[in-house]
Amino acid sequence: MAQRIRGVLSPVVTPFQKDGTVNLEKFVNQCQWLQANDVGLAFLGTNSEANSLSLDERLDMMDALLEAGVSPAAMMPGTGACDLPTAVRLSQKAARAGCAGVLTLPPFYYKGVSDEGLFRYFSELIERTGEDSLRVYLYHIPPVAQVGISLDLVGRLLDRYPGQIAGIKDSSGDWNNTLALLTRFKDRDFDVFPGSEVFLLEALRHGGAGCISATANVNPAAIHRVFASWQSDEAQDLQDSLDRIRGIFQSYPMIPALKTAISHWSGDPEWARVRPPLVELTEAQQGSLINELKSAGFSMSDLNS
Amino acid sequence: MAQRIRGVLSPVVTPFQKDGTVNLEKFVNQCQWLQANDVGLAFLGTNSEANSLSLDERLDMMDALLEAGVSPAAMMPGTGACDLPTAVRLSQKAARAGCAGVLTLPPFYYKGVSDEGLFRYFSELIERTGEDSLRVYLYHIPPVAQVGISLDLVGRLLDRYPGQIAGIKDSSGDWNNTLALLTRFKDRDFDVFPGSEVFLLEALRHGGAGCISATANVNPAAIHRVFASWQSDEAQDLQDSLDRIRGIFQSYPMIPALKTAISHWSGDPEWARVRPPLVELTEAQQGSLINELKSAGFSMSDLNS
Repeated sequence: MAQRIRGVLSPVVTPFQKDGTVNLEKFVNQCQWLQANDVGLAFLGTNSEANSLSLDERLDMMDALLEAGVSPAAMMPGTGACDLPTAVRLSQKAARAGCAGVLTLPPFYYKGVSDEGLFRYFSELIERTGEDSLRVYLYHIPPVAQVGISLDLVGRLLDRYPGQIAGIKDSSGDWNNTLALLTRFKDRDFDVFPGSEVFLLEALRHGGAGCISATANVNPAAIHRVFASWQSDEAQDLQDSLDRIRGIFQSYPMIPALKTAISHWSGDPEWARVRPPLVELTEAQQGSLINELKSAGFSMSDLNS
Repeated sequence: MAQRIRGVLSPVVTPFQKDGTVNLEKFVNQCQWLQANDVGLAFLGTNSEANSLSLDERLDMMDALLEAGVSPAAMMPGTGACDLPTAVRLSQKAARAGCAGVLTLPPFYYKGVSDEGLFRYFSELIERTGEDSLRVYLYHIPPVAQVGISLDLVGRLLDRYPGQIAGIKDSSGDWNNTLALLTRFKDRDFDVFPGSEVFLLEALRHGGAGCISATANVNPAAIHRVFASWQSDEAQDLQDSLDRIRGIFQSYPMIPALKTAISHWSGDPEWARVRPPLVELTEAQQGSLINELKSAGFSMSDLNS
């Protein structure tokens, strides 16, 4: 069995053309730049506006990366959907292409659903996908999906599908939940990725596998450095520096802020576009974000353009 | 311009076969039975588990009704989706088929989105659909979608698209919100449908257009009777009777409870099936639901089987 994916992954933001369609060429370039900065590709995630993309658009983005020769061993595409046929189709494509894993949201339309219902959903997802090579990373993001993934549900799924339930992205923003996952499943073959680099160093100290973080879109090299040198003397200083940059981005709507930074440093206004229901930052917000970042010594000077 | 649809509509529940696929024949039969009971077809709604269905499955259900000769003038399919391409595709099909309208959820993945972002979403939906005959009924269901539709957003959309924004389904469960909609837009060409028949009589007294209600799946004739005779002396008694039946269904998870009733009175166990993340009622729940309904004098003895 192939080695499990570890390290820092980016939920790659999606560039849109003037007519609103995905700019596949820019998307591939951005992924290649992230890879050159040692960051894996959790594309089609929340920060990718994946739920604002049709199934066909999502399949096309996967194809574009594969056709460009990007290694599927670096890929963990989002394949979750409210409906099983769509989630199965995306997961099947990812598994057959050799992707390291898939990041799967729970179905998020109905609220207050039971763990039994979610267990059935993930069971059907795995069984209908029907690929032994499928590695499922559960996606716990209650601030957005509202529907969360409990520790008991993780345990039940791990017992039933020990080879295929590979880990979790914990975007609860609650370190206690991340720590509970790390503790309860430490003797299982189960990898925990916090959903923000602010927990990276602490997670690595407790056996975490890395992180999957919005700001890995813009600050990949520095985040990877913490992953690569977490046992060194400088690790805490590096982590503190990550936290300062993250704090600036977090004080704006995250997805438009990430795109503003990429747009600014690539000199390409197209990158600022988002799909409804999101809206771009105002000009004033764009200006103050870039000023704050520059004042903190941040730049993306090596960005592809 | 055709007359606007009014009256009682049912968010038709979706029958699933043993392999989990939609049973189109049973679906068409059920729609025909509802029509024979004077109830319109708001299929592909929340109670239809529409968000648990793929785009192709939804298109196939629309085709099945049209091919069976069901009148599109009685149809208000749900066409909302988190992504615009899917919502546009469904809305275009419905408008071109001559459906009375489409019921459109807001994009419901991202939370805390702005009215500006939602305005852009509905604008793009209408403009990309590109059909003058499109009649959009906004779907306000904050207990499920979390993302709601504010009165200001309705006003802004009505100002911009006065011909195409036709009304709203208010499933807030908050009579004050329904009343505010009825009051504020009473001089506009805008139809308000409460999302439950418990508000039917009161809504009609304030100029409402009818209702679109889960329990119209099981109690269509009685609900229609209130609509047809709301100015008569017996209207309040009829309404009270509706409320008693609704109260019984509401004390169980609604969708599995509706399917249990249909399954029981049609003698067809297939009707009880739901898709994950929903789960069927337990046997004990099924038994007590049917007993309570029978004790209240309820039956669906005229059901197709």
